Amino acid sequence: MTDPRLPAQIEFALEIDKLKRVIRRNNLMDGSRRENDAEHSWYVGMLAMVLGEHAPPGTDLDRVVAMLLVHDLVEIDAGDTFIYDPVAVAAQVEAERAAADRIFGLLPADQGVRLRALWDEFEERRTPEARFAKALDRFAPILANHRNDGGTWPLHKITARQVLEKVKIIEEGSPALGEYAVRLVELSVGRGHLSS
Amino acid sequence: MTDPRLPAQIEFALEIDKLKRVIRRNNLMDGSRRENDAEHSWYVGMLAMVLGEHAPPGTDLDRVVAMLLVHDLVEIDAGDTFIYDPVAVAAQVEAERAAADRIFGLLPADQGVRLRALWDEFEERRTPEARFAKALDRFAPILANHRNDGGTWPLHKITARQVLEKVKIIEEGSPALGEYAVRLVELSVGRGHLSS
Repeated sequence: MTDPRLPAQIEFALEIDKLKRVIRRNNLMDGSRRENDAEHSWYVGMLAMVLGEHAPPGTDLDRVVAMLLVHDLVEIDAGDTFIYDPVAVAAQVEAERAAADRIFGLLPADQGVRLRALWDEFEERRTPEARFAKALDRFAPILANHRNDGGTWPLHKITARQVLEKVKIIEEGSPALGEYAVRLVELSVGRGHLSS
Repeated sequence: MTDPRLPAQIEFALEIDKLKRVIRRNNLMDGSRRENDAEHSWYVGMLAMVLGEHAPPGTDLDRVVAMLLVHDLVEIDAGDTFIYDPVAVAAQVEAERAAADRIFGLLPADQGVRLRALWDEFEERRTPEARFAKALDRFAPILANHRNDGGTWPLHKITARQVLEKVKIIEEGSPALGEYAVRLVELSVGRGHLSS
């Protein structure tokens, strides 16, 4: 006899496969194509494992990884938001909440609540874990754009000032990574890949 | 001054982005395209979070997630192996070991050793964590092929007997998921999507 919780869990598993088809603004590190949310989520999870020592001491890195794996699931319904578009970002909040209700609601209740709590924690950015997770989420596209001679920055006429605004979020999660990101921005400006 | 370990960690981070360009045999759940290793790694990490209660009691699920995030990194050099091709599988062992030496070797030594140990553990399948991780790695493509009316099974003339051979690995990691996988195989045979 099948465990009674398994069908709901499989339903959720089938649903979240859709994250592989949500396309982000930034490109892969080699510039060959745009990145999707699923591979991005893997990537930032890996960053948490690799860069974890740059989080404040005592940060629970396992929870950071778990948070990063679920952080974009709501985009299955709500789509990717361009972080440099303030109007879109504001409109997104409600859409993402409704998406979280629906998607985490597919799971057995206790489990849905637990995973939803990870997403809420990430969004609220009140714990060191959430701040570090968000820092990595912001760090990855800066690394990619720097690597791609500016990548999608010139395309969307993004300036160094706008990027440095996002770097503050990195600094809040990890001073060392924030400092490194500032340097990437300066290098990009110096090379003419990002307007000052 | 930058933390002296950061440049090597960033080098590793840039390198592992290539996993997004390693293409697997199976398709996405909607059949729209073949899956890449990075999004697959995210997916099985999520499965560990969602299906963790079907692992033996006491299984350290955080380590399962970490293992699944790194399990395919060696394919950046060694490529994806078709698990139903025994000759390719045997030749792959050495190539993957060399890849592990190179890729984990990019990290600061202590960290490279730690991540490499996770990959070794996964490959050796001696701990409950590794057996459960491997079970999920085998479970995901069966779910996808079942969902896709047989998916890539008929294309490669795979039979139920061959799939059931892989299901044994699922059973060893999780009896409940093994039982469920057997049922998926039987359903696929019943619908004519997999030859018996």
